[in-house]
Amino acid sequence: MPRPRLVLACAALLVACAALPASADTPTKPLTMADVLAAAKPGDWHALDPQNTLYLELKSGRVVIELAPDFAPNHVANIKALVRENYFDGLAILRSQDNYVVQWGDPHADARAGDKDQPRPIKTGKRTLAAEFTVPLNGKIPFVRLPDVDGYAAQTGFSGDFASARDPKLGRAWLTHCYGTLGVGRDLDVDSGGGAELYVVIGNSPRWLDRNITVAGRVVQGIELLSTLPRGTGALGFYEKAEQRIPVERIRLAADVPAAERTNLEVLRTDTPTFTALIESRRNRRDDWYKVPAGHIDVCSVPIPVRPAKS
Amino acid sequence: MPRPRLVLACAALLVACAALPASADTPTKPLTMADVLAAAKPGDWHALDPQNTLYLELKSGRVVIELAPDFAPNHVANIKALVRENYFDGLAILRSQDNYVVQWGDPHADARAGDKDQPRPIKTGKRTLAAEFTVPLNGKIPFVRLPDVDGYAAQTGFSGDFASARDPKLGRAWLTHCYGTLGVGRDLDVDSGGGAELYVVIGNSPRWLDRNITVAGRVVQGIELLSTLPRGTGALGFYEKAEQRIPVERIRLAADVPAAERTNLEVLRTDTPTFTALIESRRNRRDDWYKVPAGHIDVCSVPIPVRPAKS
Repeated sequence: MPRPRLVLACAALLVACAALPASADTPTKPLTMADVLAAAKPGDWHALDPQNTLYLELKSGRVVIELAPDFAPNHVANIKALVRENYFDGLAILRSQDNYVVQWGDPHADARAGDKDQPRPIKTGKRTLAAEFTVPLNGKIPFVRLPDVDGYAAQTGFSGDFASARDPKLGRAWLTHCYGTLGVGRDLDVDSGGGAELYVVIGNSPRWLDRNITVAGRVVQGIELLSTLPRGTGALGFYEKAEQRIPVERIRLAADVPAAERTNLEVLRTDTPTFTALIESRRNRRDDWYKVPAGHIDVCSVPIPVRPAKS
Repeated sequence: MPRPRLVLACAALLVACAALPASADTPTKPLTMADVLAAAKPGDWHALDPQNTLYLELKSGRVVIELAPDFAPNHVANIKALVRENYFDGLAILRSQDNYVVQWGDPHADARAGDKDQPRPIKTGKRTLAAEFTVPLNGKIPFVRLPDVDGYAAQTGFSGDFASARDPKLGRAWLTHCYGTLGVGRDLDVDSGGGAELYVVIGNSPRWLDRNITVAGRVVQGIELLSTLPRGTGALGFYEKAEQRIPVERIRLAADVPAAERTNLEVLRTDTPTFTALIESRRNRRDDWYKVPAGHIDVCSVPIPVRPAKS
């Protein structure tokens, strides 16, 4: 039997402890995230689905975005339609607000009749859609729940490759706004977004946006190409001069890109013991550097690891 | 008497409601942050103390940092000593890690005997100090408590111009790691920091660092000069080549800078009804754009407003 002191340590460790080799004589060393990832099995990873992966191509490089059709099916379908009609190609990043978001779309989206520059026409896609802020809790969407309290939601955790939240009383689930979250810009009306204007979070998690706007995915690689953009000096971080805007060279669906030009990535499955151990390694940091484990992690502070696919 | 519906609305608003003009006939409109700041009195603001304000001068401009002597008295005194002996001038930003920190100091701090480039000598300051991760809860430090739960600490709130946390059982208080927090780099040993290497948070609040490292202040203006720096491609975001480092032109104490060259800023006092109303305006966003108020705010998501001083 382990000594009482060791029992306490294990109680704090939850799941990770169960995975450790037990010994009555030598206290086991808790796992760091590096340990957890080193022990991951090939089946703990899955390849990104090319049908739900976007490549945002900037002059500085490629931003890889994973779409979330489980949470915003209509918006994801519409974004894919817009991408396939080349709607975004040659548009621009219009806004970079420090500690908040970058946003791209049509600089003339709000043009009035008679203005020289008119909005770019949309062909097969739609300009606006009914909001998809939340989805029903219908048991079809996976959910690996975090053990810790969250102030913004009754429950938080992970649904597939995404940080999410649920409220059983409301019977709703939604994706949480974390660093890297992709959202659908809208005006005052809840149904005024559609995916023609998109934003990515580049600051402290703005969780107060949850349930107020449609979340459509997350950046899985290349966010530094967005987070280091010069901040706009206008209100809300909009660029004040046209020449300050960052051109969007093109956005493509990975499935439409020749295999040789794809960025093949794998994501750690969140419904695995490996990910549960990873959560624990972040709840209580055990690297030698840490002296006081937090005993807590918030849903936006758990990394969902991504790596190049093994060829 | 207000109608039941209005009572519910007021219960959710807490303090802000009390400040609103009451009327039995017309439901009062909750205050937005813009409303709160527009109604602030001159006495709600205070000037930054030049004796505890640093100017980090980069080629791109000035970063203004407020020091926190209440929470790290020895480190703040040492940082000021290092500044006054011009220790930092000509050193460099060595590290920029996406969604985490930028860090500056002496690139040769870890040189070994015999290396060509030796660490810059420290004259009046000290290279290392005993850790100041937390301070005693002795009643001397102000604390405006947030009403909401926090997963990382028993209590969170504001102490002077800083986000902070407390644990009455431990009898300790500390500054929380938020976007813009200034911390003191250290090695494995808790007493291995001193202020010669400093970092600023440029990502999602890394609250798991709380109580593991000495926090010495926060950036009050110019953080975009740090947050937009190219990310380092080495481990932990360190720049791999010397020429990638960003030179620190100089760091000065505001008190040592001629009055005409100072950046005169005022900070909203956190111990005022105005700030309490501001907290509520962030707990429940009432701008027309918001449809579902969160009913919660975390300590790192409450802005502590800063403005140019009225001349």
